[in-house]
Amino acid sequence: MLNYSRGKGDLKNWLISEIDFSSNALGKCEATMSLGNGYMGMRSATEEPYIHETRNLFVNGTFNKAAENEVTELPNLADVTRLDIRIDGERFSLELGKTKNYIRQLNLKTAELTRSFEWTSPKGKELRFLFKRFISLDNLHVIGLKMEIESLTDSVDVSIDTGINAQMSNSGCQHFLEGERRIYNNQFIQLIQTTTESNIDVVLNTTHKMKVNGKEVNDSEMHMARRKVWQTYQFKLLPNDKLEMEKVTTVHTSRDKEIPQEGYDLQKLRDDSLQALQSHADKGYDSLFQRHKDAWQQKIWNKYNFELASDNDFDELALRFSLYHLTVMTPAHDERMGIGAKALSGEGYKGHSFWDTEIFILPFFIYSNPEVAKSLLLYRYHGLEGARRKALENGYEGAMYPWEMAWPTDGEVTPEWGDIDIVTGEQTKIWTGFIEQHITSDIAFGVYQYENVTGDKQFMDDYGYEIVFDTAKFWASRLEWNDEKHRYEINNVIGPDEYKEHIHNNAFTNYMAYFNMKLAMRYYDQLKEENPSLLQSLERKLDLDEMYSLWEKKTKRLYLPNPREEDSVIPQDDTYLQLKEIDLTKYKEQDTVRTIYRDYNPEQINEIQVTKQADTLILFYLLEQTFLAEDERISKAVKRANFHYYEPRTLHDSSLSLVTYAIVANDIGEEALAYRLFEKSCETDLGPMMHTSDEGIHAASIGGIWKTAIFGFAGVRLVNGKLTIQPRLPNHWKEIKFTIHWQGQPINLCITPTSLTVEAVNKEKVEFESYGKMYECDDFIEVVFSEEVIKNS
Amino acid sequence: MLNYSRGKGDLKNWLISEIDFSSNALGKCEATMSLGNGYMGMRSATEEPYIHETRNLFVNGTFNKAAENEVTELPNLADVTRLDIRIDGERFSLELGKTKNYIRQLNLKTAELTRSFEWTSPKGKELRFLFKRFISLDNLHVIGLKMEIESLTDSVDVSIDTGINAQMSNSGCQHFLEGERRIYNNQFIQLIQTTTESNIDVVLNTTHKMKVNGKEVNDSEMHMARRKVWQTYQFKLLPNDKLEMEKVTTVHTSRDKEIPQEGYDLQKLRDDSLQALQSHADKGYDSLFQRHKDAWQQKIWNKYNFELASDNDFDELALRFSLYHLTVMTPAHDERMGIGAKALSGEGYKGHSFWDTEIFILPFFIYSNPEVAKSLLLYRYHGLEGARRKALENGYEGAMYPWEMAWPTDGEVTPEWGDIDIVTGEQTKIWTGFIEQHITSDIAFGVYQYENVTGDKQFMDDYGYEIVFDTAKFWASRLEWNDEKHRYEINNVIGPDEYKEHIHNNAFTNYMAYFNMKLAMRYYDQLKEENPSLLQSLERKLDLDEMYSLWEKKTKRLYLPNPREEDSVIPQDDTYLQLKEIDLTKYKEQDTVRTIYRDYNPEQINEIQVTKQADTLILFYLLEQTFLAEDERISKAVKRANFHYYEPRTLHDSSLSLVTYAIVANDIGEEALAYRLFEKSCETDLGPMMHTSDEGIHAASIGGIWKTAIFGFAGVRLVNGKLTIQPRLPNHWKEIKFTIHWQGQPINLCITPTSLTVEAVNKEKVEFESYGKMYECDDFIEVVFSEEVIKNS
Repeated sequence: MLNYSRGKGDLKNWLISEIDFSSNALGKCEATMSLGNGYMGMRSATEEPYIHETRNLFVNGTFNKAAENEVTELPNLADVTRLDIRIDGERFSLELGKTKNYIRQLNLKTAELTRSFEWTSPKGKELRFLFKRFISLDNLHVIGLKMEIESLTDSVDVSIDTGINAQMSNSGCQHFLEGERRIYNNQFIQLIQTTTESNIDVVLNTTHKMKVNGKEVNDSEMHMARRKVWQTYQFKLLPNDKLEMEKVTTVHTSRDKEIPQEGYDLQKLRDDSLQALQSHADKGYDSLFQRHKDAWQQKIWNKYNFELASDNDFDELALRFSLYHLTVMTPAHDERMGIGAKALSGEGYKGHSFWDTEIFILPFFIYSNPEVAKSLLLYRYHGLEGARRKALENGYEGAMYPWEMAWPTDGEVTPEWGDIDIVTGEQTKIWTGFIEQHITSDIAFGVYQYENVTGDKQFMDDYGYEIVFDTAKFWASRLEWNDEKHRYEINNVIGPDEYKEHIHNNAFTNYMAYFNMKLAMRYYDQLKEENPSLLQSLERKLDLDEMYSLWEKKTKRLYLPNPREEDSVIPQDDTYLQLKEIDLTKYKEQDTVRTIYRDYNPEQINEIQVTKQADTLILFYLLEQTFLAEDERISKAVKRANFHYYEPRTLHDSSLSLVTYAIVANDIGEEALAYRLFEKSCETDLGPMMHTSDEGIHAASIGGIWKTAIFGFAGVRLVNGKLTIQPRLPNHWKEIKFTIHWQGQPINLCITPTSLTVEAVNKEKVEFESYGKMYECDDFIEVVFSEEVIKNS
Repeated sequence: MLNYSRGKGDLKNWLISEIDFSSNALGKCEATMSLGNGYMGMRSATEEPYIHETRNLFVNGTFNKAAENEVTELPNLADVTRLDIRIDGERFSLELGKTKNYIRQLNLKTAELTRSFEWTSPKGKELRFLFKRFISLDNLHVIGLKMEIESLTDSVDVSIDTGINAQMSNSGCQHFLEGERRIYNNQFIQLIQTTTESNIDVVLNTTHKMKVNGKEVNDSEMHMARRKVWQTYQFKLLPNDKLEMEKVTTVHTSRDKEIPQEGYDLQKLRDDSLQALQSHADKGYDSLFQRHKDAWQQKIWNKYNFELASDNDFDELALRFSLYHLTVMTPAHDERMGIGAKALSGEGYKGHSFWDTEIFILPFFIYSNPEVAKSLLLYRYHGLEGARRKALENGYEGAMYPWEMAWPTDGEVTPEWGDIDIVTGEQTKIWTGFIEQHITSDIAFGVYQYENVTGDKQFMDDYGYEIVFDTAKFWASRLEWNDEKHRYEINNVIGPDEYKEHIHNNAFTNYMAYFNMKLAMRYYDQLKEENPSLLQSLERKLDLDEMYSLWEKKTKRLYLPNPREEDSVIPQDDTYLQLKEIDLTKYKEQDTVRTIYRDYNPEQINEIQVTKQADTLILFYLLEQTFLAEDERISKAVKRANFHYYEPRTLHDSSLSLVTYAIVANDIGEEALAYRLFEKSCETDLGPMMHTSDEGIHAASIGGIWKTAIFGFAGVRLVNGKLTIQPRLPNHWKEIKFTIHWQGQPINLCITPTSLTVEAVNKEKVEFESYGKMYECDDFIEVVFSEEVIKNS
């Protein structure tokens, strides 16, 4: 179980700690304490190996498809963290001997992982161990590792095998050819890996500096085995002797942005990276770490500038945890790359990008670091090629985005087969890649949100309009005319609730398709007015002839399910409300995911009123940010009715569910419930269930922590194109301070239960609405509101 | 450390036991206690996993080349032995808690592996465990596994994950595509793997039967993950409750001999194998095991019929160990397959066949089971295609056998790169595949020995002559004329002593090439006389026009190094005797292999009078079996001189070395030394060094145990085409009884220090020489000889 209260003074709410080592729950710390810098990410497996460990190092964008019947994925690179330590000839392991004063700690502020303890070997020798590790935010290619071993009572023989081990795989799937290995000058180890299909070279270099009582001792034996190269260091430590080891590693790939498209030369990459390693190693761990720490301070903590006073300290820590991982997971350096659903912290979802990005993560960057938000949308822009191919292959027009996206040009990469079907004993067919289609409008929504919050017209001209027009073109071709009902429908889809396959007129899908086309029309109108030549060129490029009238015609007749008269519930799809109901208690109380699949197979679940995750609910929250905000079908009363209908039927069997319910609960005035859902959502990764993060952290849920705090409790939201700030803080929260970016200007906000101060950092005018009143400010303004107002809003 | 004295009564000298579990030396038991039946072989990794385990399952002949820069090898199949057992939710492991009465035991007689112990969990619960395992010799596709868990004191929750796990690799190299997985009726698990390049399907089926106190309880949860399918069984055991699990597995491949060449159908193989599994499982472990045990008794122990009375019990056990592994390693069922240098007990040498087969293993089968010997030679016959290709590619004629051979038609498969070069830090280049050429004459020698001992003319007509003619043709093209010295030479080779690369006129190579050509001439002469039409057809097929006169001319002028005048030492090669000498003590006393490479790189070792393994020495032992026996250059005096020169310079850095030195030592009357070398050679796998077998057992050394006993101590040998029996038993040995096959007839021999009885089982006449006298017998004969005679012989 993790501990969050060890940080004192300056470190308060900055430390995630493990104070009892358990080899039964390794995944928890490996994932939640994973390190990275967007370029690469590493699970925090311990230096010494354990049976159930998962040791992963991923470099973003290095996708490889191992075979025809496999799916492209981020390959697990060679490992540099494992140390085979022997004390008096016996394997060092915390499962053996006795351990005292154990602490493993991720410092969110410095992004350093440390581990320390005293250990008594099975033979009774006492030693003190300290491990430190970071992945540099200063130089994205650098990994630093440090170890200290002190013999406390006896003289001991210490031996360490350390090097580069490419005998790694993704759960048995090997993505690399055996590459060259070499040790230069008995000191600098180099190993090359090349992916089997995408032909990406990975160059790893590592080197060690060993000191005993401060004196360098670098004698070692050199070894090579298959896919492995290492050195063995041996020391005899007398009582109180201290061994220090520094291991500095660099990782480069031929896919790196700085590699020239033409004239790439592996030998040059090898030489240059080796030279870089030598220079890093000369600086040493402490100096490299200082630069890394400074980078975190400057680029992250100063920029995101976040403080929360809650009588539950965990909340501030959870928000920092969110900011930490949002930084670590995001390839801010390279617009050709997206964010994986498990970030870079595990093999789960293979590094693929889902709607999680646009709906759960992108908002943070739009409001906090628009440059990065732009990079993430450019990733989708580059993905148009694959989206167009997917549309064509499915008999549609325009851009039909892949449900799962890897390298931008790859197109659809969703696997076709999943977990076991308990009825047939076969693998279940995965339909999402074929029929979960709302991703296309989710991306259009991302563009809309980005445009409205940042005001980045250049982006729209260069990329944004094209995405919106081509996705709207897809929807126009996708709609099906129902002659009997005289309306357009969208049949045979999966909505956000993936328990329901092959359903018709999923409300979320239909409304969002409607939004997507309406948005295109809006932009079309605007461009016609403001930039007709751009419009013309886009019309030519995208073959939009007659498209506007098509959009007009089709949006008018598109079936948008109305709330039922009797209870204002919007039917999730054509049949949901008629399905049988079962007692869901057992699954609502699940301590892991997918428990319902132990009793029912997908066909059976399809026939029950049970929902995996927020589906109709998420619609409200999205649409009110748009020009459709005034649609009475998404009024607060309808919201409330649907919340109370769907929540009891929702298993929250996806980490995307709770945050949406938390926000909507807050919106409808269920503050206590909202706070409870927020806490539960933070616990997706940080909670007491020790196996929830085994496959990796939950990127969307982590984005959702920030979303719930800012969009939910702090009430900062884009509503119909305008900034609104209508806080409704949980009882526990006394004050929250943070910065958002609005129309290019940083805005410092400070919110208490009854007040709001807004500071326009650049002294440029900002308008916002709060509880029905409009405010303007080009400097600093304080708004005070009564609890009455909040309650009645 | 292994124990050999636990077998009492009927089991005396049949049990190899481990009585203290050590996770620091897992490889020892995994390899020495490995199971198999020639069709497949499995390392005996424990059911519960350990960090340094190596879990291997190989099916002979299923070679796959993973990538262009890799070498074809036997791929490590999916595992069915690992059980993830949790006791009260905690991982069961002998590294944790306390273990009492631990015994792991391989019964050589029944080829069953058992393991039993009492274990107290970290929480203090006491349980008794029993594991059993066999790989059937009755049905080559069947693996049986049984487990018992008894709770001794408390009520405990036991959970077991068991199934088929294809997340395996050869040290990180994955040879299989992800295949289909399925569980039929929540009971029968099937997993398919297909090799990536050779396109071989492997179909594994497994099923479990669970009983608590004798009552079947088969409830389980079904799971699938990548390359993995398994069931989780959970039980609550009350004190004294006994859980029994039987797991029966079948392994089939599309390369199996019984699979039709045309019209192979994976679905049929799946269906048939699944049906077979069901029928095996119905029989149950005990019944399957009984058939397996009977097969061992009938096919092996009755047939090989071996007894040794030694005052050192270990000797008999070592000989049985040898017979056990010679059975387990040999694909007696399929002539398209050979014997790997590490048998099927590890990844070492990749399942490739070396000269180890013909010189160290084949003799056992020639004298004990000629049918199998024939199968092994047919493997080489099928290899002619690759051997001819290799000759052509190297600019020679005839058949140049690959130094390492895998699938017969693959040709040369020796890897090109090896271990680290301590000077450059790069991988060392492996030259053996290019220039270790004596393998070609070694195979011709195998044919010669087979023909002389078995008298199998049909084999010679169909296959044997062709091999000998085509290999002799190779040598004729290979010789180089030295104009200055007016002689043919063989330059730039590696002899058996692989420390010496690119040397000229390696004595062993030159003499054996000479033998090979002389043998061809002999057969040519014979055929001309006895079967001219066969000769004609072979002449046509092999294009032997003028070849005879070429052989005649070249053998006459081939340089065969003479013993030096001053000390009768035959120079190992042109330069060896002039190289510098260093103190080798450190390396002679090595407790592992290749220690000299820690101080010197290959170039440096090339310049030192140091020999890896018997080189010139093995020549004597081979040539005296041939028609060259009378050559005075290989007289006993020369033998003795060379023994005393080369032994001190030999590091025995190959398991092929000691047995040869032991035999030669015995020949020259150094009985005590011979016995010591024999014991040391048995210790290659069975000795106290716990890591010598990590990569697998030493197939040649294991053949050598039998060779030393029979050819060495018992003095049974082919000499110049005749059977000679000149025993010279070690002091420790009182009596040895065994059966050899001579000219198609089994001959029972019983030897004491001063007598020999010979029984012609089929009552056909057998002639043999013993200490200078010829004997004839068609029933039974006893020969008594004085110690005087032995001493002076």
